[in-house]
Amino acid sequence: MQQLFSKPSFIVDENKCRRNIATMIAKANKHHLIFRPHFKTHHSIEIGRWFREMGTDKITVSSLDMARYFASDGWKDITVAFPVNWLEIDKINELSAQINLNLIVESVETVNFLKQNLKNSVGVFIKIDTGYHRTGISVNNTNLISALINEIKNTSCLKLKGFLAHNGHTYKTNSIKEIEEIHSGSLRELSKLKAQFQDQETPLIVSFGDTPGASTMNDFVGADELRTGNFVFYDLVQEQIGSCSFKDISVAMACPVVAKHPDRNTIIIYGGGVHLSKESLKMPNGEQIFGKIVHLKENGWTDPIPDCHLSSISQEHGVITASDSFFDSINIGELIGILPVHSCMTADLQNTYFNFEGTLIPNHRS
Amino acid sequence: MQQLFSKPSFIVDENKCRRNIATMIAKANKHHLIFRPHFKTHHSIEIGRWFREMGTDKITVSSLDMARYFASDGWKDITVAFPVNWLEIDKINELSAQINLNLIVESVETVNFLKQNLKNSVGVFIKIDTGYHRTGISVNNTNLISALINEIKNTSCLKLKGFLAHNGHTYKTNSIKEIEEIHSGSLRELSKLKAQFQDQETPLIVSFGDTPGASTMNDFVGADELRTGNFVFYDLVQEQIGSCSFKDISVAMACPVVAKHPDRNTIIIYGGGVHLSKESLKMPNGEQIFGKIVHLKENGWTDPIPDCHLSSISQEHGVITASDSFFDSINIGELIGILPVHSCMTADLQNTYFNFEGTLIPNHRS
Repeated sequence: MQQLFSKPSFIVDENKCRRNIATMIAKANKHHLIFRPHFKTHHSIEIGRWFREMGTDKITVSSLDMARYFASDGWKDITVAFPVNWLEIDKINELSAQINLNLIVESVETVNFLKQNLKNSVGVFIKIDTGYHRTGISVNNTNLISALINEIKNTSCLKLKGFLAHNGHTYKTNSIKEIEEIHSGSLRELSKLKAQFQDQETPLIVSFGDTPGASTMNDFVGADELRTGNFVFYDLVQEQIGSCSFKDISVAMACPVVAKHPDRNTIIIYGGGVHLSKESLKMPNGEQIFGKIVHLKENGWTDPIPDCHLSSISQEHGVITASDSFFDSINIGELIGILPVHSCMTADLQNTYFNFEGTLIPNHRS
Repeated sequence: MQQLFSKPSFIVDENKCRRNIATMIAKANKHHLIFRPHFKTHHSIEIGRWFREMGTDKITVSSLDMARYFASDGWKDITVAFPVNWLEIDKINELSAQINLNLIVESVETVNFLKQNLKNSVGVFIKIDTGYHRTGISVNNTNLISALINEIKNTSCLKLKGFLAHNGHTYKTNSIKEIEEIHSGSLRELSKLKAQFQDQETPLIVSFGDTPGASTMNDFVGADELRTGNFVFYDLVQEQIGSCSFKDISVAMACPVVAKHPDRNTIIIYGGGVHLSKESLKMPNGEQIFGKIVHLKENGWTDPIPDCHLSSISQEHGVITASDSFFDSINIGELIGILPVHSCMTADLQNTYFNFEGTLIPNHRS
C-alpha cells in the first residue's frame, strides 16, 4: 500500500466489511429480527450494495439528505431515525412520493404538524427513551405515549409502525453484564408497551439498534427489528466494549510520517482532527488516545503495535508516542495506519474511501 | 433568518469578520510585522478576498491542497506551515513553478530529500519547538539547527527564510500573564537564534502565529512575521482565554429545534458532531460544553443566553440544557444559533458557509 497514497486516506478492507455484514445478517435471521441496518456509518452507495447483495432491503439513515442519496440508488424502504425536522417538510413530501418512508415522532406538536403538511402517507415510529436520555419519550410516560398513539391513529396519512429506541448508554458500560442489564431491561419495557398498545388492526414493531447490544447479546426476546450500523466498520470504542476484536475493524487511515523526534520518542504524522475527528478513548490506565497504530501491508494491516498510540492530535498533525523499537523501525516518508476511535465520525469526514488497490469507494460526501 | 435555513447551517457575519481582519492588520502594521494570516480557519477564496482588499498579499495554509486552492485565486506567496510531506513532492514541484512557496523543515533527512527531488527553488523555514512539544526542533538544540542551516545553505534550490514557531501552549493558559510569559519567552529565544545564525547574506525572519498571543499581547519585540488565523472567526475557546469578547465571534451555526423534553428541561436540535465537531470546552465549574446558545436575529445574533448550553452531542443530535425561561420561549420548528467551541474545526466540516441573506460563501470543501 506504501506507493498508493500520498495523504491521509481512509482504507476499507472489503473482505472484513462483508464478513461483518454477513455475521450480523446471520444473527438477525437466527433471532427472527427484521434487519434494517443504519447506513450513517458508511454512508456509501457502494457499500450499501454489499448489503443488498446479501439480501438487505430495508435501511435506516440519520438525515433526509442521506435518505434521498440512498433512494437515488433504488432503496425503497427507509427509516430516518431522527426526530422529524419540520423545516425539511418538502424533502419529506418528495421522498414519501417515491419510497416507503418511516419517520420518528415524539410529540403531539410534531404529529399535528405532519397532519397539516404531509402530502403522502408515511410510517411513524414513536421514539422511546429507555435510559440513554438523549431524546425520546420516557418509557414510563404512558399517558403521553397513549395520547400520541390516539393522535396518530386519527391521522389518515400516518401509519403507526411501533416503538423505536436507542440504548446509547451501552457505550458507557464496562462489562458484558452491564450491557446485558441495559439490553434485556430495555427490551422488557418496550415489550410491555407493545403489549399495552398493540391490537388486531395495529401490529407494532419494537426496533432497537445499538451495536454493543447487537454484537454481544444472544437473547433478543421482545425485539422485532435490528437497526445497528457501526458493526460494518467497528472501531476502538467497540473493541474496548467487547463488541469486536481488533481483527474485525475493517477500516484504517493511512497517514504519511512527516517528522521524528528522538528526544521525546514521538513520530509526527500527517493526520489530525480534520481527518480522524477529535474523538478520544480512555485507556484502562487513564490515558486518552486518538487511535492505535498498525503497519500497513499489501492487502491489509497488522494488529496494533504494542506500547504505541496516537497520543494527541490537532487540526492536521497527529503525534504518535512510540516504543523504542517502533520508533527505530519507521522512517519519514513512509505510511503507517491508524485504527480510528469512532469510525462513524472518521468516515463522515472523508470525501471518499479507498480499497487496497487505491480505487475510490465514493460516499455521500463525494 | 428563521425562513432561510432548513438544516444546520454555518452563518458568517461578514461585518464582524472584516472588523476582526482590519483590527489584526492594524496591529501587525503598528508593530512592523509582516502579516501572513493562516487561511486554514476559513479556507475560503471569498473570505480570502476580504483580506486581499485590505492589502494582504502573503498567506499561510496547512496543506499543499489548500495552497493549490488559494494559488488558483491568484495568491502568489504561500507558506505551508506543516512539515514537508515527502509523498506530495509532485504538488510541491507544481506549486513552486507558479508561486513563491515556503516550506517547513525540521530534519536533515527532509532537507536531503528536497535537495534530490525539487525542480524549482523554494523558501524554507526551520520549525522550532518553543515549548508546545507538538513538532519542531527544540529551541535549545542549536547543534541540530546549525547542521540544518549548513545543509540548507549548501542546497541551491533552498532559500533559508528563518525560524517558524507555534506557541500552541498559550491555548492551555488561565491568565493573560501566563500568555505573556510564553509569548515573551518564546520571542526572546527565537531572537537569540536569529542573532546567532543571521549574517549579511542571510537575513532571517522570526515567524509566530498563535491567536491568543496575537490578540492579547502588545509587545512583539523579536518577531518579524505574524501568522495568526483563528481571529477571523474567533470562538468560545478564544473568548475563554481572553483573546476576544462574545461580540467578536463572527460565526454561528443555525440549527433547527426538533424536540423538547419538559421532564428534563432539554431541547433537542438538529446539529451534532458532524456539524459542529466534537470539540468541547471546560467551564469554570468543571462542566464540559459543546457550544453556547444565541437567538438568531434578522442580521446577526444575541449574546449567549444565560444558563443555557449545548451539554452533549452525538453524530447528528445536540442536547441543550435550558433555563426555564429559554425552554418556554423556544418552539419545535424554530432555528436557534450555536456559537462554536473551536471555529477552525467547525468550519472544516462545512461544504459551504452562508451570509445573513442565505447566499452561499464557498470554501475549500465546496
